[in-house]
Formats: sequence, structure tokens, C-alpha cells
Amino acid sequence: MELPVRKAVRTMHAYVPGAQPESTDLLKLNTNENPYPPSPKVMEALGRISTEALRRYPPPTAARLQAQIAELHDLNADQVILLNGSDEGLALCTRCFGEFRERVGFLDPSYSLYPVLGDIAESSMIRFPLNEDFSWTLPDTLDVELFCLTRPNAPSSISLPLDEVREAARRCTGVLLVDEAYADFAEDNAVSLVNEFPNVLVSRTFSKSYSLAGLRMGYLLGSAPLIDALHRIKDSYNTDAIAQQLASEALADQEWMRGNAEKVKRTRRQLTQDLQARGFQVLPSQTNFLFAQVPASRDARQIFEALSAKQVYLRYFPGERTGNYLRITVGTDEEMQRFLQRLDELLS
Amino acid sequence: MELPVRKAVRTMHAYVPGAQPESTDLLKLNTNENPYPPSPKVMEALGRISTEALRRYPPPTAARLQAQIAELHDLNADQVILLNGSDEGLALCTRCFGEFRERVGFLDPSYSLYPVLGDIAESSMIRFPLNEDFSWTLPDTLDVELFCLTRPNAPSSISLPLDEVREAARRCTGVLLVDEAYADFAEDNAVSLVNEFPNVLVSRTFSKSYSLAGLRMGYLLGSAPLIDALHRIKDSYNTDAIAQQLASEALADQEWMRGNAEKVKRTRRQLTQDLQARGFQVLPSQTNFLFAQVPASRDARQIFEALSAKQVYLRYFPGERTGNYLRITVGTDEEMQRFLQRLDELLS
Repeated sequence: MELPVRKAVRTMHAYVPGAQPESTDLLKLNTNENPYPPSPKVMEALGRISTEALRRYPPPTAARLQAQIAELHDLNADQVILLNGSDEGLALCTRCFGEFRERVGFLDPSYSLYPVLGDIAESSMIRFPLNEDFSWTLPDTLDVELFCLTRPNAPSSISLPLDEVREAARRCTGVLLVDEAYADFAEDNAVSLVNEFPNVLVSRTFSKSYSLAGLRMGYLLGSAPLIDALHRIKDSYNTDAIAQQLASEALADQEWMRGNAEKVKRTRRQLTQDLQARGFQVLPSQTNFLFAQVPASRDARQIFEALSAKQVYLRYFPGERTGNYLRITVGTDEEMQRFLQRLDELLS
Repeated sequence: MELPVRKAVRTMHAYVPGAQPESTDLLKLNTNENPYPPSPKVMEALGRISTEALRRYPPPTAARLQAQIAELHDLNADQVILLNGSDEGLALCTRCFGEFRERVGFLDPSYSLYPVLGDIAESSMIRFPLNEDFSWTLPDTLDVELFCLTRPNAPSSISLPLDEVREAARRCTGVLLVDEAYADFAEDNAVSLVNEFPNVLVSRTFSKSYSLAGLRMGYLLGSAPLIDALHRIKDSYNTDAIAQQLASEALADQEWMRGNAEKVKRTRRQLTQDLQARGFQVLPSQTNFLFAQVPASRDARQIFEALSAKQVYLRYFPGERTGNYLRITVGTDEEMQRFLQRLDELLS
């Protein structure tokens, strides 16, 4: 019998996340995890999880955490939706605003999940190519139902000026989703646009700056009608009881998060210089990773593969635009020393 | 500006989960949670969660837990997909097999989430009405892309004979999803059909028999091509690191789960008799709840509301078919005594 799997699902290319090798004897610089542990308050909260919290269904909208996030960003609670990782938010947006041949726009290159979500939702996808230097010249109109604007962008690591994001919100005929996974490592963010424009959503995650990728927690900020629409289609109990409590502790300890972000930014500056000294061209990163073009005489894929063989995992995106580059997560200073040592062995 | 929220999303009735009041001074018999705590091994595992597990992305397909579940059910790992609660699996099935005006069939009455998921996916929904006594006369053909068969059924609590499930698999032109949230409280289950029929999926949850509703963990079993299609459209990291480890411990402690299920079944027998003694007609439950018709002279909604006012929460489904019934979660013996006491105060 022929199984009734939708053609779009049968023919799509599934998203390929960065490898998650289980060995601990390796240098994992491929999925932009934070090299520092989450706030000690998170681990303390783990010890206070009760059997009751596990036995019962969790608060469906994570109301307490929702209120806490609203306060942090000076918004109302009905402008916040909690998500099982920010990826769930991106998927919900595609389904809510961009499904059934509606137009979903995104930068090219950008987060490689968007076209996968568009494939699943059978959206009509429109790629907006970046300039040679990965900057973006804003078109006169963004005539789409949903535009996914990664800011700072990945894999380029650079950030569109905030004024241009504001202008993009004006020119966008649909929802402008500003995907701010890396905002805590950047100079500024787009949260202020949420109250300026009814069509702006801002996406945040606990995976990067809060060191909680394992927890799967993210959120979206936006006007109440947009957030309400997303609440209608999310799974009722999409975030679990433990994650709600731990994310709450992490959010309350802004000092810890900021401290880690500062350390990452310091190491980022040093690593940028160290790579430049070796002939790499490094884009001015506002994230916790670098996007570095290998020296002209070198082959990026070859370096990527040789390093993988030495248990040093980077991310490599083949293709005309990105094929000369390596994406390198900023780790601890000690990890960066080990990385550079392996790199030097290879280049010499 | 008009926001591009899909009409289907704007006009749908969102799923209303049972109330989750936060007070602890109440009798919560409305969402079929297990009255007993999860295995002590689960709580021990909580203490072993490392900062590394939180800092890093979790294994995308929960490979170890997947293998463990496959072994438990005597299947291959590629016949198992882990989910952020079994509700995620139901939503994925609707999107994978039943979206865009495809036909989704389900029993009426049955789990009230199905029509909500159908609304979101803009499926063409076909209701198969149950007989007066909530039994089902299988039609000659189930001509749908997806049929959701809750077994044991909710809210009726009764179970379709396994031979008829097998016959339903034969007569179904699409995917037969056997939703077995309550299977561990029943006499038998449909897992053996997974290898008999390429179009059968069986859904399971950790929320009921494993006492882990707060954790959000469920899974689907099925033929490799069906499971592969679902893997393609799920969020990459849909289950978190803590939930994977805790679910693994719970699954390994089958004795604990079985012990709790036996206690629930004993209390279920007693509660059935106690309600019958008060003039209720109780369907022969194979779940951890009872579906009880109130005595002819009584009004079910009135009892439901009066008990709520006394901090005793049941579930009430208005409507012609279900409006004379109350759905009552089986708690501990002590909780059932308190429930009956409040009920008697009301009826006298």
C-alpha cells in the first residue's frame, strides 16, 4: 500500500543539525554552545524539583516565567510566548503566517532551518541574497507574509544596523520575525521595535547566552494579537515543568549571564586577532562564533575535515557564498589555544 | 495593517486543557494524572544531571532512549520516535498525513484534541459516531488519510476489542494511529500490530502510567517509513536532555510502573462499586479514570460545578452524548474517600 505521506515531506531535505558526538575528549566548536556552565542557581533549583512537579501537568503557558520575561523586557505578559526551544517558535511562525504557498522571505545565506520549515509548510520561499561582504541592501518593499531576519546573522556573525531593522519593519507587508538567538553577544537588540510595530516578533533562546541548550527553552516577543495566534496553535503543554523552573532561575541571574557573555566577547576579540595573524579574514562578529575566510591558498573544506579527524569540530557550509569560510564557536581561552595549536599543526 | 494570520487559525477554537489550579489544598481529579510519584530512580537521576548536559544540545533523536524503548517493545530503533509529550506526536501525524484538506477520521466522542489539530492543519475532518453505549460498529471501510483511534477511549474509558483494531487496520486506507495513552491500565495493547501492518502507529506517553506528566515525554511506534517521515518534520531537538535521562530511568523501572498501575486498578474497582451504590452508571474502565453517568434525577453539570466550588476538580464535557456524565480520575484510596464524602454531602 502507498502510505499517505505528503509529497512535500517525502521530497524535502530534512534539517541537519551540527554533529553531537558523545565523546568528551574533543573540542566541540560546531553548534555555538556557551563554553561556560549555567548559573549555579540553576543547579540549585534542580535539587528542589519535587515529585509533584513531575507527576502533574506543567502550567500550560508557563505563566510565572512568562511574567518574569515580560518584566525583564518591559512588556506585558500577553506579549510573550514560551517555546520548547526557539526553533519551535520559528516552526510555529511558518505554520501560522507562512503556510500553504504563502510567501516566506529570508536572507541568503542565513539560518539553514528556514528553508526546511518552508518546505514542510509548503510555503513559497523567497531568498533575499546578501551582498558579497554579507551586508544587506534593503529592498523598497518586503512583500511577504513572513520575513525571517536573523540578527546578528548566522553564519556571517554580523549584525544589520538597528535603523535598518526598523526600516525593514516599515517595508514588510507581513510579519517581521527578528531572530535574536545571539543578541546577548551583540551591541544592541530589536526588542524596542515590539511596541513600535504590530508586525514585529523577536525570538530569543536560553541555548546560547544562558548556557541551557540541553533544556530546550526559548520565547517570542510581539504584539498581543500575534502572540495570541501562536498560543492557539502551539501544543498545550509545550514546555516542561523542570525547564520552566530552571529557565526562571537562569533569567533571574542576569549578572551570571552577562559575565559569561563578556568573557566570550573578550575571547572573541583575541581569537579574531589570532586568526587574522594567520591570514584569515574574519567578519566583525556580534555573536559567540566567528565566520572566517581561510587564507587564499587554503581549502576550507580540507581544513574542516582535517580538524574533524583531530577531534576538533567546526561547522562548514558548502556552496559558492560560504565554501571558503569556517564557522568557529568561541570557547574558553584554553579551548581556543588548543584549537589554534591544532590549526597551526595543520597549516605548517 | 491586517496581520497575515491564517483564517483557519483566527477562526479555530483552541484546545482547552483541564484546569491546572496551583493551590495544593484541593482534590485534582480532572486531568488523569497518576496519584503516585514516579520511580525513585527518576529522582536519583535528577541529582546526577550535569552542567554539561544542560550546556550542550541534547541528542537530537534521543538515541539511547529510542533503543531502550525499541527493546522494551521488541521492535527496531527505526520504529521509534521520541516526542515532547505524545500530543506532539498527534500534531506531527496530522501535519504529515492529514494536512491540506486531507481526511482525518476520529471517534465521536473521543480525545477533544483531534478536531483542534485538524482545524490548525485545515484537514477535512470526519467524525465516526459511537453507539449509544459508546461502543463502535466498525464501518466497511475507513477511507481517510489518517484515523485517530483512542484505545482505551477517552472520555468513555472503554476499549475496542483488539481483533476489531486489527480489522480497522485492514479497512483503513491511510494511517491508523492507535492512541494508547492509557494502555498500561488496560487488559491488552496494540503494539503487536506495528509489525503486522505498515500503516499502524501506536502512541504512548510517560504522563499517565509513569507519573511524569510534568516532563513532556511520549513516543510513537510504527513501520520505519512512517517513523522516518515523522522524524523529517519534527523540531531537531524536540526532547530535552533532562527529560531523556529521567524517562530512561522510569522506563527501566517497569516494576514500579506496574505496581502503581495495579494500585490504580484496585482503586478503580472499588470506586466503580462505590459510585454504583450511589446510583451512578459506570462504564467498565480500562483506564485510570471513570466515566460515570449521574443518577437519573441528577444534573451532571450541577454536580461538577458544586464539587469545583468545594475544591474537587472533575472533568465535564457538555453536549448531548456526554452531558449526563462526569469523568473522574482515579486517585489514591484516601483521595477517593474524600471525593465520595464531598459527593455524599452534595447528594444528600
